[in-house]
Amino acid sequence: MSEQERTKQVGDFARLDLDRVRRRGYPEAIYCESKTLEQISAIAAAVKDSAQTTLFTRLLDGHAEAALKVLPGAFHDPGARFLAWPPEAPEPSGVDILVVCAGTSDLPVAREAMHTARYLGRSVDLLADVGVAGIHRLLAHEQRLKAAGVVVVVAGMDGALPSVVGGLVSAPVVAVPTSVGYGAGSGGVAPLLTMLNSCAPGVGVVNIDNGYGAGHLAAQIAAR
Amino acid sequence: MSEQERTKQVGDFARLDLDRVRRRGYPEAIYCESKTLEQISAIAAAVKDSAQTTLFTRLLDGHAEAALKVLPGAFHDPGARFLAWPPEAPEPSGVDILVVCAGTSDLPVAREAMHTARYLGRSVDLLADVGVAGIHRLLAHEQRLKAAGVVVVVAGMDGALPSVVGGLVSAPVVAVPTSVGYGAGSGGVAPLLTMLNSCAPGVGVVNIDNGYGAGHLAAQIAAR
Amino acid sequence: MSEQERTKQVGDFARLDLDRVRRRGYPEAIYCESKTLEQISAIAAAVKDSAQTTLFTRLLDGHAEAALKVLPGAFHDPGARFLAWPPEAPEPSGVDILVVCAGTSDLPVAREAMHTARYLGRSVDLLADVGVAGIHRLLAHEQRLKAAGVVVVVAGMDGALPSVVGGLVSAPVVAVPTSVGYGAGSGGVAPLLTMLNSCAPGVGVVNIDNGYGAGHLAAQIAAR
Amino acid sequence: MSEQERTKQVGDFARLDLDRVRRRGYPEAIYCESKTLEQISAIAAAVKDSAQTTLFTRLLDGHAEAALKVLPGAFHDPGARFLAWPPEAPEPSGVDILVVCAGTSDLPVAREAMHTARYLGRSVDLLADVGVAGIHRLLAHEQRLKAAGVVVVVAGMDGALPSVVGGLVSAPVVAVPTSVGYGAGSGGVAPLLTMLNSCAPGVGVVNIDNGYGAGHLAAQIAAR
Amino acid sequence: MSEQERTKQVGDFARLDLDRVRRRGYPEAIYCESKTLEQISAIAAAVKDSAQTTLFTRLLDGHAEAALKVLPGAFHDPGARFLAWPPEAPEPSGVDILVVCAGTSDLPVAREAMHTARYLGRSVDLLADVGVAGIHRLLAHEQRLKAAGVVVVVAGMDGALPSVVGGLVSAPVVAVPTSVGYGAGSGGVAPLLTMLNSCAPGVGVVNIDNGYGAGHLAAQIAAR
Amino acid sequence: MSEQERTKQVGDFARLDLDRVRRRGYPEAIYCESKTLEQISAIAAAVKDSAQTTLFTRLLDGHAEAALKVLPGAFHDPGARFLAWPPEAPEPSGVDILVVCAGTSDLPVAREAMHTARYLGRSVDLLADVGVAGIHRLLAHEQRLKAAGVVVVVAGMDGALPSVVGGLVSAPVVAVPTSVGYGAGSGGVAPLLTMLNSCAPGVGVVNIDNGYGAGHLAAQIAAR
Amino acid sequence: MSEQERTKQVGDFARLDLDRVRRRGYPEAIYCESKTLEQISAIAAAVKDSAQTTLFTRLLDGHAEAALKVLPGAFHDPGARFLAWPPEAPEPSGVDILVVCAGTSDLPVAREAMHTARYLGRSVDLLADVGVAGIHRLLAHEQRLKAAGVVVVVAGMDGALPSVVGGLVSAPVVAVPTSVGYGAGSGGVAPLLTMLNSCAPGVGVVNIDNGYGAGHLAAQIAAR
Amino acid sequence: MSEQERTKQVGDFARLDLDRVRRRGYPEAIYCESKTLEQISAIAAAVKDSAQTTLFTRLLDGHAEAALKVLPGAFHDPGARFLAWPPEAPEPSGVDILVVCAGTSDLPVAREAMHTARYLGRSVDLLADVGVAGIHRLLAHEQRLKAAGVVVVVAGMDGALPSVVGGLVSAPVVAVPTSVGYGAGSGGVAPLLTMLNSCAPGVGVVNIDNGYGAGHLAAQIAAR
Repeated sequence: MSEQERTKQVGDFARLDLDRVRRRGYPEAIYCESKTLEQISAIAAAVKDSAQTTLFTRLLDGHAEAALKVLPGAFHDPGARFLAWPPEAPEPSGVDILVVCAGTSDLPVAREAMHTARYLGRSVDLLADVGVAGIHRLLAHEQRLKAAGVVVVVAGMDGALPSVVGGLVSAPVVAVPTSVGYGAGSGGVAPLLTMLNSCAPGVGVVNIDNGYGAGHLAAQIAAR
Repeated sequence: MSEQERTKQVGDFARLDLDRVRRRGYPEAIYCESKTLEQISAIAAAVKDSAQTTLFTRLLDGHAEAALKVLPGAFHDPGARFLAWPPEAPEPSGVDILVVCAGTSDLPVAREAMHTARYLGRSVDLLADVGVAGIHRLLAHEQRLKAAGVVVVVAGMDGALPSVVGGLVSAPVVAVPTSVGYGAGSGGVAPLLTMLNSCAPGVGVVNIDNGYGAGHLAAQIAAR
Repeated sequence: MSEQERTKQVGDFARLDLDRVRRRGYPEAIYCESKTLEQISAIAAAVKDSAQTTLFTRLLDGHAEAALKVLPGAFHDPGARFLAWPPEAPEPSGVDILVVCAGTSDLPVAREAMHTARYLGRSVDLLADVGVAGIHRLLAHEQRLKAAGVVVVVAGMDGALPSVVGGLVSAPVVAVPTSVGYGAGSGGVAPLLTMLNSCAPGVGVVNIDNGYGAGHLAAQIAAR
Repeated sequence: MSEQERTKQVGDFARLDLDRVRRRGYPEAIYCESKTLEQISAIAAAVKDSAQTTLFTRLLDGHAEAALKVLPGAFHDPGARFLAWPPEAPEPSGVDILVVCAGTSDLPVAREAMHTARYLGRSVDLLADVGVAGIHRLLAHEQRLKAAGVVVVVAGMDGALPSVVGGLVSAPVVAVPTSVGYGAGSGGVAPLLTMLNSCAPGVGVVNIDNGYGAGHLAAQIAAR
Repeated sequence: MSEQERTKQVGDFARLDLDRVRRRGYPEAIYCESKTLEQISAIAAAVKDSAQTTLFTRLLDGHAEAALKVLPGAFHDPGARFLAWPPEAPEPSGVDILVVCAGTSDLPVAREAMHTARYLGRSVDLLADVGVAGIHRLLAHEQRLKAAGVVVVVAGMDGALPSVVGGLVSAPVVAVPTSVGYGAGSGGVAPLLTMLNSCAPGVGVVNIDNGYGAGHLAAQIAAR
Repeated sequence: MSEQERTKQVGDFARLDLDRVRRRGYPEAIYCESKTLEQISAIAAAVKDSAQTTLFTRLLDGHAEAALKVLPGAFHDPGARFLAWPPEAPEPSGVDILVVCAGTSDLPVAREAMHTARYLGRSVDLLADVGVAGIHRLLAHEQRLKAAGVVVVVAGMDGALPSVVGGLVSAPVVAVPTSVGYGAGSGGVAPLLTMLNSCAPGVGVVNIDNGYGAGHLAAQIAAR
Repeated sequence: MSEQERTKQVGDFARLDLDRVRRRGYPEAIYCESKTLEQISAIAAAVKDSAQTTLFTRLLDGHAEAALKVLPGAFHDPGARFLAWPPEAPEPSGVDILVVCAGTSDLPVAREAMHTARYLGRSVDLLADVGVAGIHRLLAHEQRLKAAGVVVVVAGMDGALPSVVGGLVSAPVVAVPTSVGYGAGSGGVAPLLTMLNSCAPGVGVVNIDNGYGAGHLAAQIAAR
Repeated sequence: MSEQERTKQVGDFARLDLDRVRRRGYPEAIYCESKTLEQISAIAAAVKDSAQTTLFTRLLDGHAEAALKVLPGAFHDPGARFLAWPPEAPEPSGVDILVVCAGTSDLPVAREAMHTARYLGRSVDLLADVGVAGIHRLLAHEQRLKAAGVVVVVAGMDGALPSVVGGLVSAPVVAVPTSVGYGAGSGGVAPLLTMLNSCAPGVGVVNIDNGYGAGHLAAQIAAR
């Protein structure tokens, strides 16, 4: 396959990796954070007629509007800064994914993970506000945790939730630190270090606030 | 089940979590690094007659000798600072795991990951010294990489290997930074940050030199 | 009171703060880590005939021997690197203190906290190896936790235990991160940050491995 | 007690821990920093008719207005970014708390600590602008410091005040570093490290700018 | 040569190093980031009639307008925050430079490097969006990489591209980390450390986002 | 002297240290950065009729206006964020101070140092834009450097200037790192570390951007 | 070319990159720091009969002896922890390299850079102990600096030398921070940051103590 | 003056800066930490017959013996790792220096500062073990502190002493953080940051454990 078939040139600034679905089984995502509105529009136009799902992640102000003008009806969750095209998620396959988050503040990242996994073809459920400071709130859901094929755990501040969840289940845990919190270890450093040092093994960590990465990894693990 | 049935008290210093196999499906490992020789001996004696596999990780000088005196014939890899009892690994099940390491210096951690996954019941293969500075050495093994159900990538220094491998395969990647290297970012900080920032999604990271954690997570992912 | 009455000059290197018991209610401790054997001996001789309790903390190799030669029969716990003179702890007063530690490796620091509080006149109990990766091991002791007047929680690695304990009890929690663990956040940085970011309020943190400071603070809180 | 009795679901984003007063003796606080105005309004409505005190901490622009619309007459200190409902603090019990702050700039955090402890049922007094660069200003209040049952010390920049106060009193000291200062160690890192390394024992540290946590811990210590 | 001949005083705030072309062979650049609009105007006026090229780098809002008013027709690339006067680049000499960048987001820094080298008298080409997550996109350009006399590699996130490029070519590689990315290692720290730890030797690193420095160094290397 | 004579209470937020001139010989400065406009006005009113010089440092937007309304004619340098009252500096005494700065961008901090020393009663001169990248620009002023009684050196980026100046003069050097620069070591960390590691002894360092502290220390050193 | 022709398998731990000379023009080096004595011996045997130069870098205790037993007469500099086989360096080509070091303590790293460049076929000279604290010592060699085709500057502590040298010459500068120094910024962090922030452009930085990398890069730049 | 007159070549590794006394008024010191025994011996021989004082600082094991063999009778303080030749200090001139240290553990660094200033020609006194945790111990010496022309303050752990001393005296304060302490901020980072953030102005900071630098700076300040 030639390079021309494998990549699609957009303007002079991007080379879409069309080959990625064939090679990896999952489509490319457009990381929007450092792109201009013009670049977003051009990329949206380039993918408009593709049958393949395209994810736009970490949208900044104006990005969603620019994309929606080209892709009307696209799925858009402003809190999660996430947009998907075409709007219909694929039929789910593989085992079930459960996304768990510690506090209300962690919800946007948790939803980015959830949407990502759904648009990559998995079935995903969400359990919110079950932090370890009220451990009985979490334990009340022990059966639901044990039933999942993959558990994505999203937490800021002390980041202690994956250690507790990891100790309860046999499924792999994908841990996502969030930048929720302040003071020493803020910006997500504290929960990142906590998760890397989880005393329960079986925890794979992604970068701070990287809900997309967590959802993608969970989708790959849950594939059968 | 009472606490007495779920845990086994060893001396006044440890409470073995016997319930873990039932709860999580995987046995507990004994983290040796901060234990005395007497504690290792006592724990070895406590697990000697158990049918359940026990892993001893991060053995220090003298630890292996203390354990082997109580558990003669145990499997022992000095480089990987790893010991397993009983010496026979379980019959493998699940999909295949491939452990890939960038350089010769990363081998001890890679072998700790490999042994861990094997003793947790998986089939594991190892591909060594295929760092990105000679990218064709890696690409020569592209089919083998694509065939694996889970890929564990072990790398120090620049830690660039998981980004390249992650871009080639559809299976999930477990990335293990090692403390190989010196200067700025030494002690594994540079490859850890590289792996958390992998431009290929689908990479779950464990702590620096944590071959045990990587092997455990890979075993859980590879279970079917 | 003149300076001569308030301090005792030892050689040309130390000025013991004799006034401290009157002023604060607690005796001074001798921090041994950067003292020579000769300095330890001279200080031991200076306090030998005092009725007041003297604690020697963070003893290095040879320190205990030097002190015991001058103070035969002194209480000595080598693991905790702790020595007290005179060997009899005061009659306990105040409410009860419970020291809880996450893993076997945290025991030396936990014991330093326990001894300190005992020699400052409190009643102290110890609960070991109840980390959050096996949360039911901890919950089995919920009543004992709730009964304590102060809980000292000692943990390394992810340092998640104080968040969970703090969420269960009404008593204040003194949290001590330990340098147990490796890789990113090692040397106690990870549990320190976790504890400072505890999602359960009511947690006061002391420095890494500072069992002495934790025991002292707990003794002050438990005084009535 | 069932989960339904123990928690109150608010929208799909929060699970109020109603059980906390029974379990810990203190009500939950609403951490506002990462919540939307809608979430604040919904939570305010959910607690409006409760007899239990609810604290709203770290209010952002608009948060107070949203809450006051639902909870007219609530106690509100804009500088401390703090709001309490119902506006009457409970009758104080326990020993007295003294909040001391080093400079004018530390006052907002000091007042957050003071309000928190008052609304948790304690008697609290405040002593402002007594930094160590004019040590006689502090020593002029030595008797007042010695009379307190708990001393909360709030300081930015060099964070030296808790070491000096801790050396003067027999009561426990809760130390709060503030983000006052600039350059190396700014954002509160310098006073945090100073306080963790206090040469006077008996100092428990909370996270940077965490007046709420300090007030909560002080209230627990001062309870009798 | 007297100091008066070697430097040109501008207002009371700057001393232009006129001697630099004679001494080093390359003209001085005006680092604009911390200069006022008035200072930019005064410097523009001072260099207006010089035959020597002057580069203005890291322009802030308003800077370009201030300079263009004095130097109409100057070359200006807003994305690269770069302006050159006079607008014509010198005739190129030396070997060819290839600037390679990993992602669209790295383009502004890559273009700053390209412009700098061109205005210092070199021939420069640009290859964009060839990150290592799609390694075949890069390898398709292997001959072009091997043909360059110097390769400037610009990358954010994992910063893995210089290791791979360095392993393919015999020319020296100038590596520029960019502040593209988020979470742990953000602000360019992760790619900086990766590049300093490149497993392929022959990589010289400049500071984060320092396209000017990279272009300058490449121009010096490419001079013959 | 009673506390009432030594301090002046302003509102309930500040305690001016009137005793400081008697005790230290230098008046107190008002650090404005975290004060409200109302606090600035109240303090200005409190010092209006004092014969003693008062310095207002690190003024934020609006601060100067608030102070000037109460103290019309006060000396004000907006770039240096500095205001002094009364506007006349004392008659200079002691040896001469020379303030040297590396680049134009370091001027605001250099001027804060200069003003501070002048209002504390010293004679001060300024030498600007003599960075080490054009070492002959600096050496042209060698006699002027050698003639000063104290040299204050202000530099950002590499912070190399104090090492070179320190090696040329017999007078003490006060080094001030500035937050000029970007990328790794930005915010002044790089020049701070450089200055602390100066290979020329005789360099005392103050915090990043702390022109006030440098000017104060220089004034004390230059006093005779 | 097949993988078998391109790489040489040594034991089960290494894959020598024989293709590297063809691909890059420079032979592979053996990084010894984390290799066992047995691995060193096996690699030495594998390269013994090769016409190609092999460099062994960062030798630990015993490594040199193990290699010399297999490769008698090999060039060995114990201070630089460097060994080359065959002992004769190639005939030099390209422009001249000058290695400059700030202090005596930087000599081992400087010599590693010098040897590396020589064994890669360049002509190299060394200028030692010309740190910036005695700037005239450096300026006495200004002509020698200006005559070099590439300058490698090696410095610890403040790392200021490359800024000064870079400002004097038109040739590219390769800067090597060393771990010489103590306290804040020790381990080479201070000179690394200084060099990355050099106010003279044209400085490419390699990792701390990486004399090998500097020599390699200089050799590539000096090739013609 | 020619370079030959200004420097003295020792072996091929050092260039003694003989011109320094003329240029700066103070002799060079030999920083021993990274020198071999042979280098120390050669330097000792080179300075043996000089009338000028030579200081050897930070001696490692064996260094003192090597120097004393060449320079019998030299002044040697093993704890301070300091040696001076010739053994007689110059007649003191200038104002008096007082070195104050917080704890016994800070004495070696304090003595290095004291010896340095004495051998550079000043009169120095020492006040030990007056840390801020017993503030009255310090205040008992208030007159002695006020009488000094320069105060050197040496402290580890919280590093709070310079803030308090700086607030009491009109003389300049040279602050030296020591690496005494453990846990967060260990290695001297905590006291360094405290000192840089001193709320009392007039504090110049040197690097951690840099008693030599502090003594040198104090000697320069005290010169008249």
